[in-house]
Amino acid sequence: MRRFVIGSARNLIESSRQKYQFERSILSSSYRFLSSSPAADSPSSSSSSSSTMAHPVSLNTINPKVIECEYAVRGEIVTLAQKLQEEIQTKPDAHPFEEILYCNIGNPQSLGQQPITFFREVLALCDHPAILDKSETQGLFSADSIERAWQILDQIPGRATGAYSHSQGIKGLRDTIAAGIEARDGFPADPNDIFLTDGASPAVHMMMQLLIRSEKDGILCPIPQYPLYSASIALHGGTLVPYYLDEATGWGLEVSELKKQLETSRSKGITVRALVVINPGNPTGQVLAEENQKAIVEFCKQEGLVLLADEVYQENVYVPEKKFHSFKKVSRSMGYGEKDIALVSFQSVSKGYYGECGKRGGYMEVTGFGADVREQIYKVASVNLCSNISGQILSSLVMSPPKVGDESYESYNAERDGILSSLARRAKTLEDAFNKLEGVTCNKAEGAMYLFPRIDLPEKAIKAAEAAKKAPDAYYCQRLLTATGIVFVPGSGFGQVPGTWHFRCTILPQEEKIPAIVTRLTDFHKSFMDEFRG
Amino acid sequence: MRRFVIGSARNLIESSRQKYQFERSILSSSYRFLSSSPAADSPSSSSSSSSTMAHPVSLNTINPKVIECEYAVRGEIVTLAQKLQEEIQTKPDAHPFEEILYCNIGNPQSLGQQPITFFREVLALCDHPAILDKSETQGLFSADSIERAWQILDQIPGRATGAYSHSQGIKGLRDTIAAGIEARDGFPADPNDIFLTDGASPAVHMMMQLLIRSEKDGILCPIPQYPLYSASIALHGGTLVPYYLDEATGWGLEVSELKKQLETSRSKGITVRALVVINPGNPTGQVLAEENQKAIVEFCKQEGLVLLADEVYQENVYVPEKKFHSFKKVSRSMGYGEKDIALVSFQSVSKGYYGECGKRGGYMEVTGFGADVREQIYKVASVNLCSNISGQILSSLVMSPPKVGDESYESYNAERDGILSSLARRAKTLEDAFNKLEGVTCNKAEGAMYLFPRIDLPEKAIKAAEAAKKAPDAYYCQRLLTATGIVFVPGSGFGQVPGTWHFRCTILPQEEKIPAIVTRLTDFHKSFMDEFRG
Repeated sequence: MRRFVIGSARNLIESSRQKYQFERSILSSSYRFLSSSPAADSPSSSSSSSSTMAHPVSLNTINPKVIECEYAVRGEIVTLAQKLQEEIQTKPDAHPFEEILYCNIGNPQSLGQQPITFFREVLALCDHPAILDKSETQGLFSADSIERAWQILDQIPGRATGAYSHSQGIKGLRDTIAAGIEARDGFPADPNDIFLTDGASPAVHMMMQLLIRSEKDGILCPIPQYPLYSASIALHGGTLVPYYLDEATGWGLEVSELKKQLETSRSKGITVRALVVINPGNPTGQVLAEENQKAIVEFCKQEGLVLLADEVYQENVYVPEKKFHSFKKVSRSMGYGEKDIALVSFQSVSKGYYGECGKRGGYMEVTGFGADVREQIYKVASVNLCSNISGQILSSLVMSPPKVGDESYESYNAERDGILSSLARRAKTLEDAFNKLEGVTCNKAEGAMYLFPRIDLPEKAIKAAEAAKKAPDAYYCQRLLTATGIVFVPGSGFGQVPGTWHFRCTILPQEEKIPAIVTRLTDFHKSFMDEFRG
Repeated sequence: MRRFVIGSARNLIESSRQKYQFERSILSSSYRFLSSSPAADSPSSSSSSSSTMAHPVSLNTINPKVIECEYAVRGEIVTLAQKLQEEIQTKPDAHPFEEILYCNIGNPQSLGQQPITFFREVLALCDHPAILDKSETQGLFSADSIERAWQILDQIPGRATGAYSHSQGIKGLRDTIAAGIEARDGFPADPNDIFLTDGASPAVHMMMQLLIRSEKDGILCPIPQYPLYSASIALHGGTLVPYYLDEATGWGLEVSELKKQLETSRSKGITVRALVVINPGNPTGQVLAEENQKAIVEFCKQEGLVLLADEVYQENVYVPEKKFHSFKKVSRSMGYGEKDIALVSFQSVSKGYYGECGKRGGYMEVTGFGADVREQIYKVASVNLCSNISGQILSSLVMSPPKVGDESYESYNAERDGILSSLARRAKTLEDAFNKLEGVTCNKAEGAMYLFPRIDLPEKAIKAAEAAKKAPDAYYCQRLLTATGIVFVPGSGFGQVPGTWHFRCTILPQEEKIPAIVTRLTDFHKSFMDEFRG
């Protein structure tokens, strides 16, 4: 491998390599969790593939951080699923199932969830304002969607929905979002703290880019975690400092564990910059209790850590005994303000009851940073000019939906409740089904869109996986996919306690398909266990 | 400054600091071009600003690459312009002008350019497909926009415009784009080579992330350049290797200059990875001749450089003697295929006659990379899931607009020609006006959306700028702004031959405003020269 010959650069690569080995060993419990043969995984069958002639750019000469980064949610299993789907399309009896059942990704509308009508009406009117004062429009659109579109257009300089906006997003929309946050939390929110982004992912990248200086900077992340975090930390050359969620207490987040991991990493010379908390949890589905959140805020304050609060599932809570509390509300209720704690809250239009993943809308609320650092965040946002305006508009809509008395209110409310109550039923049905499987235990799905059951695999299955050069959970998921068409993501893509195995399953397939999924899964699991039982 | 105490990390910081000094000295000819007082530049007047108590995160502890990166197009002058605008709104006679005339950024619709009706019709229908088969819709939308919306919906699995798509973008839309490229170039294009992105900027970042391993990796960039490139290279920790465009020959791109700079940087231990060419040029407005492009392709092939072709202004050519040729067409016409040259072409919906900046749509066509490297690009795209679907749809529309016989064709054609011919007239008027100013010379605006006149400033003005701690062109632009409300970007933000001074002016203000701009500029310039003439 021909990389560098210069001293300091080599040192960097060496230490970065050690770091990745450290990280990988944590995340995959000694399995290289998503590798196998890169050529076979190629996402597209371009004519460019060749082994005879050299291309100017090779794997040996690209950024090693890119190579190290992994993103399981669209990894090997999903690539295989796409291949099987193509095979079924050309030859319907190619496999022992009629369709691929994607339970791998939080993408509700790809599985048939319908968008909220009011939101789409407003977006369409803002896309083509020329029809706003035509008489036919009143027959096609609700009165309040027409009114809202006018309001939004009036907030955009020159009513130009096709113009770059302020780098943080359109000011009027940020006002609406701040008002929505205030209504949610009961504490003030400043529109100048809002940065609108193309979904939550670019916001997370922006914070990692800001905070990570080298591999000596660490970010505390839950294990299991949503792999955006491990990918973003790897791409920005930092170190993922893991803290384990306690499966036995319903994926509990213990501050003692945070302290332990912080001290361990400090003793290794890592400067921990931030703590990532995903609430409700992805992939774990737990909803944090307010007392627990207070202890987390206190910990961040004491240790001077930035609290990166992934709150994109704030609308997805399915059990009456739990309620979502934003970390901003919790910290303000403790009397902590701007000077006490640096807190970034991420929100997205992709989740909730709206599930508008394709719109790429979202925001981060950035508090507790000085004006000088804020200016740097603004500058980085400016390099990309602005996020897409439809996503900006939708972000304002989800924080300010129709209200009692609006023409759309009843239909909006029915659509919203229909989706959320169905999600709750689906979560419960799948949770119960998992708990009936031999060797499988599944915590309660309190929130978010996922279940993360644990599977005790027979020794023989682990051996078979080893022979197939797969992590045992990846082996299980691949066998499940080829037998049933069901797509789960192996737990090794999210991280798990070494020696334990899990998979992530979304609760998103349409409700009428859930019984078939349960039957197929149950049948497969029985035969898999029969095959490998000791 | 408290940064690191660990040896290798300090080495990195040291060498990175040297590198930035090198880069800065190239770009700004010894002036720190956009600094001055950070506190005063704060983009938002948040309550978080404080000098008495420390925030957990300070400028001393964030990623120094973020601090080093600059983006002049939304820099200090623009922040000042926004401040003046607010002042005028509250107190109309606060300044000697009634409005701010933004000539700083290629943002046509913010200055009154109207969107192409057909494009907006299709977008609105795809946003709210529920109205597609309503009778009122036929009264509001053209028949071909309804038909196109159906076609597009049928290309999206489950017609779900709210779902995440394939990480490269919706396959059917990539098919349309590839067909559009084929029709443009007369050479085949593969939909699997297309990566749809949220505008061109994220695509540029993605390639920089892929290619740059350390500060020892260099990217050849034109000087003057669009500051996205210097910003992205800084953020990814690489080295900008400048090559100068020759102002005397209409911003000519000489291969001898490329060779000289390549050799110089190699002798300093820099591995040059890629060559950025912006054609038509930004900020320089030149359109490359085909023979010149052939020589550039040959150079990249010989030297094993990736050719990063910024072709976002491909529709913006204003002079009959010049024509846009894509670098892919040029290289294929030379007989060079996949194995001969690695070529990335960037395209955006923000420019052209459409100017849909707020939609954040664009794509890159990636050719000449092996399947293994392509898979890495795909993985990085997957970490961000996908680009926004409206932007994807619009990208397909600009590469496949209405055709003769379609109901919208005539109105589409009239809108398109109206915009492009007006832009050509505005370019000529401004070019002539600049050339009439004392000490100012301006090359022909052959394409793109900018003029980049050179200004010979009197010695006294340079002294005054020095006293004000500004680069001389920044000083001129600030004086111009406060006297007239006209916003230009100083040439030091783009880079220029040391000792020369320029500014960038867009040709985008609406045509009826151009005479007033010319008058105000001419009057200001005369009094400025009178003030400082030796």
